[in-house]
Amino acid sequence: MRKLIIITLSLLLTVLIKVSHAQNQDSVMIRKMYTEALTNPAGYKNLEYLCTKIGGRICGTAGAREAVQYVKKLMEGMKPDTVYLQPVKVKHWERGNKEIAQIVSKKKGKKDLHVCSLGTSIGTEDGGIKAEVVEVHNFDELKTTGRKAIEGKIVFFNRAADESRINTFESYGGAVDQRARGAMQAARFGALAVIVRSATTAHDNFPHTGVQHYADTVKPIPAMCVSTNDADLLSSWLKEDPSLKLNMNMNCINLPEVLSANVIGEIRGSEHPEEVIVFGGHLDSWDIGEGAHDDGAGMIQGLEVLRIYKALGIKPKHTIRAVAFMDEEIAQRGAAAYAETAKKKGEKHIAGIEADRGGASPWGFSIDAPDPQLNKIRSWKPVFSPYNLWFFEKGGSGVDIHNLKEQGTPLIGLVTDPQRYFDYHHSGNDTFDKVNVRELELGAAAIAGLVYLIDNYGL
Amino acid sequence: MRKLIIITLSLLLTVLIKVSHAQNQDSVMIRKMYTEALTNPAGYKNLEYLCTKIGGRICGTAGAREAVQYVKKLMEGMKPDTVYLQPVKVKHWERGNKEIAQIVSKKKGKKDLHVCSLGTSIGTEDGGIKAEVVEVHNFDELKTTGRKAIEGKIVFFNRAADESRINTFESYGGAVDQRARGAMQAARFGALAVIVRSATTAHDNFPHTGVQHYADTVKPIPAMCVSTNDADLLSSWLKEDPSLKLNMNMNCINLPEVLSANVIGEIRGSEHPEEVIVFGGHLDSWDIGEGAHDDGAGMIQGLEVLRIYKALGIKPKHTIRAVAFMDEEIAQRGAAAYAETAKKKGEKHIAGIEADRGGASPWGFSIDAPDPQLNKIRSWKPVFSPYNLWFFEKGGSGVDIHNLKEQGTPLIGLVTDPQRYFDYHHSGNDTFDKVNVRELELGAAAIAGLVYLIDNYGL
Repeated sequence: MRKLIIITLSLLLTVLIKVSHAQNQDSVMIRKMYTEALTNPAGYKNLEYLCTKIGGRICGTAGAREAVQYVKKLMEGMKPDTVYLQPVKVKHWERGNKEIAQIVSKKKGKKDLHVCSLGTSIGTEDGGIKAEVVEVHNFDELKTTGRKAIEGKIVFFNRAADESRINTFESYGGAVDQRARGAMQAARFGALAVIVRSATTAHDNFPHTGVQHYADTVKPIPAMCVSTNDADLLSSWLKEDPSLKLNMNMNCINLPEVLSANVIGEIRGSEHPEEVIVFGGHLDSWDIGEGAHDDGAGMIQGLEVLRIYKALGIKPKHTIRAVAFMDEEIAQRGAAAYAETAKKKGEKHIAGIEADRGGASPWGFSIDAPDPQLNKIRSWKPVFSPYNLWFFEKGGSGVDIHNLKEQGTPLIGLVTDPQRYFDYHHSGNDTFDKVNVRELELGAAAIAGLVYLIDNYGL
Repeated sequence: MRKLIIITLSLLLTVLIKVSHAQNQDSVMIRKMYTEALTNPAGYKNLEYLCTKIGGRICGTAGAREAVQYVKKLMEGMKPDTVYLQPVKVKHWERGNKEIAQIVSKKKGKKDLHVCSLGTSIGTEDGGIKAEVVEVHNFDELKTTGRKAIEGKIVFFNRAADESRINTFESYGGAVDQRARGAMQAARFGALAVIVRSATTAHDNFPHTGVQHYADTVKPIPAMCVSTNDADLLSSWLKEDPSLKLNMNMNCINLPEVLSANVIGEIRGSEHPEEVIVFGGHLDSWDIGEGAHDDGAGMIQGLEVLRIYKALGIKPKHTIRAVAFMDEEIAQRGAAAYAETAKKKGEKHIAGIEADRGGASPWGFSIDAPDPQLNKIRSWKPVFSPYNLWFFEKGGSGVDIHNLKEQGTPLIGLVTDPQRYFDYHHSGNDTFDKVNVRELELGAAAIAGLVYLIDNYGL
């Protein structure tokens, strides 16, 4: 009996020492990853080039083509085992060079508003549209207002994002239906066009664009967004002069679809090359800014993971793969192409990580996985606590990896500080100077650390 | 026995219901505080005026005088029970209009550097100083270099802040001795002047000023700081031309002390008016920026607590007091005057809260108190978790309330995201546009919530 106890205790001690040694090794390696990220601003410089030399890059455009080549070259420079383009057929919408909205009021005078066309919107006829404006705040109010009051007019959706929400993604989520489906809904009641308050908590002059959708069953009408300051102005002028008119003129256009690509770089696994950990963000961005936070930052953080692995000479057991997804903003065709190809090839994805919430300070991870995987990731909290990662909650990951869910892949989204994000999102304000080098690199190191732990211990 | 069990259970249930009801009421009130903060940008507008209309306000200067009057007027507008000025005698140092450092190298040519004088430094003689430069990285190296190599030269302290640290306060803390005591130490070895690398992790052209101290036992010599970019440049030129010279010319000056003030506003306690919860930040700031993050933000957050209390009609049991401290940057005379007066009046401070780490997203609280108080504050974590406050650790509070420690007052510092702070700190880059309205107001609500819980439950 005594002997048995001694053997058991010895075994236990050996296991404990091994576990502790492994944890210590993990801590040392993750510390190295953070040091590499914080002391080598390569990713930040790459983002600078993407933003300031290439700039806006909505799918189908010249900017997107140039960005694909640039990111491919960047990945090749990191010398992973493979870099390739994955074909993606994308929509091609061009903004044109005219997007004007001018209030014409007999009582108040004329006023040009800060506006821009919404993605996939048709343009107006050459002479534009001149019509009265009906202000509504949601689709119920639209219905109550009714065809008689709406027909032949421009519908102005003016529900503000709720600033009292702590998480700005909720503020945005509570307002964005007006942008996404406003035109489709207003057209049912005979509206000529829509103008939509920008979906942001900010009060400024930047219009925030974004995709909008037409329904097959209703006639498409032009759709534009207006800055929050000018939405307030239009609303107040309407109170004083309900019969004021709005001159709208836009020459955006939908063109035939074109071939584009996801850009993929991978380091093959030494033990399980057939099992993949995928991570990344999207390469396309809206055309009116530089796509710095949305999502140059997240896409570059994916590339940084490859760079950090190579810089530290880490050989992963599983294949680790960075993907710069094309067309997140319009129809998520890159996401679809990636998941379909993976299915066709019979690839097994053991985890997917997406970074598409802006390049601010990382908080942790939002985990879309059953409890055992969730709890396994949570068990790594102590390893991340020196890096101020504290958020390990069940929740959504991101739309570019979401299609892998049907494979049963645990999906994870990098969660970053959300307060400033919607000041920039989809606007001319989303520029490189809004990204902080340390915040960007801390996010990259967080993903690298998570990839490292998943590679070592699985999920 | 059965009766006893029933009575005990009933009592327990009553207590549990009361506790749960109180917790629920706390949650409701704190939610109201956050809503008031996030939907009313009063504090942000006040900070804008302070930064853009008054600007830099180092103690003793016209800016500081104007700021005292402005903050007094702001507090009065919030209609607390009392607003008053507390006299503080402060040093008066003026930067002057000349701060020049030019490299003169026979090999490399001439180059003007981005520099500024350090606070309390004496100026150079009228013609300036022209001398060779000795680069060192710490006080040990200074000693090893020795008098023979240093005498009659300018010492260039060039130890960089450690970028690999996760917390930038540690990066700063590891470099700032060169600024604070470089002149004093170099003078011991016969240096004519010092030029010090800015204590920041940023790589840019902003010189970061700050206070420096002379020793009574050594002759004061002029001290300036240089931007990190130009520190790198000077270092690389020195490698190519060790005998290059530096032309230094500054006309900063120490003038007689003047009378200034802390600005104080309080709401008297309804049950314990003699017991005080004090909170705030400092009113003075360096003169070369707008003192937006350091510490306009923290000072304004203190005022916001008063505003939120009045807006919601909350009547505190204890006296709650916002203090805008004068002279944090040079000699902390406001802090000293406040603590001395409190002692003289026999005031009992049940808690002190300071906000002086920049106006970025709040993380939680650093608590300088014995374990029972620390644990009580930690027990409130669940109430703060909807607001993403997660940091409740033992640590320092802030220099403006630190003197209350000898009274046994539990001291607390608002902890905010530190990544961007030292990009701005003490430089011309610390301007209003770097502050985000939501981040600022979330910090104000966090302090208001903590004051509310301390007022209700004590520590």
